[in-house]
Amino acid sequence: MEIADLQKLMKDIYYHCDRERGIHKTFVWLVSEIGELANSMRKEDNFEEIEEEFADVLAWTASLANLLNIDLERAIAGKYPGKCPRCNSCPCKCSFR
Amino acid sequence: MEIADLQKLMKDIYYHCDRERGIHKTFVWLVSEIGELANSMRKEDNFEEIEEEFADVLAWTASLANLLNIDLERAIAGKYPGKCPRCNSCPCKCSFR
Repeated sequence: MEIADLQKLMKDIYYHCDRERGIHKTFVWLVSEIGELANSMRKEDNFEEIEEEFADVLAWTASLANLLNIDLERAIAGKYPGKCPRCNSCPCKCSFR
Repeated sequence: MEIADLQKLMKDIYYHCDRERGIHKTFVWLVSEIGELANSMRKEDNFEEIEEEFADVLAWTASLANLLNIDLERAIAGKYPGKCPRCNSCPCKCSFR
């Protein structure tokens, strides 16, 4: 699936709710999903729940991006054009991470 | 760009660093990027910085997924197969959000 398709899918399903809720409350939801991901990672043998929480983090990131008119494909292409944005190398040879 | 390609790009550039840092510290980095996104949203006329922070949130989500052997494409297809996972409708007709 293209990143743009994920963003469109979230727009098709949820934009009417997302717009009504607004940017800041949607950001709170995203943070809540990050917390659920953390919780899922605390348990052993929990692959399915972790996978589901990753889906939710991506989904709410896309919903928030829709509200802010951010094109996630463009964002990635601009910041990570195939190499590390700091050392300009792939694999990264800097101490960025 | 496919979601799988984003995940592979992060693997190619950063996996050697990500593996050395480990899962929990990488999660802390992801949370830090969520904070930076929040900060960028507080300012007016800040489209470029917001766009960059979205790229970082996606990048660190993909890095963490790589460490946990999560396939993000599979995660999204499993949880959001073209409609809301709760009301099974597109657009969502439930009070999920």
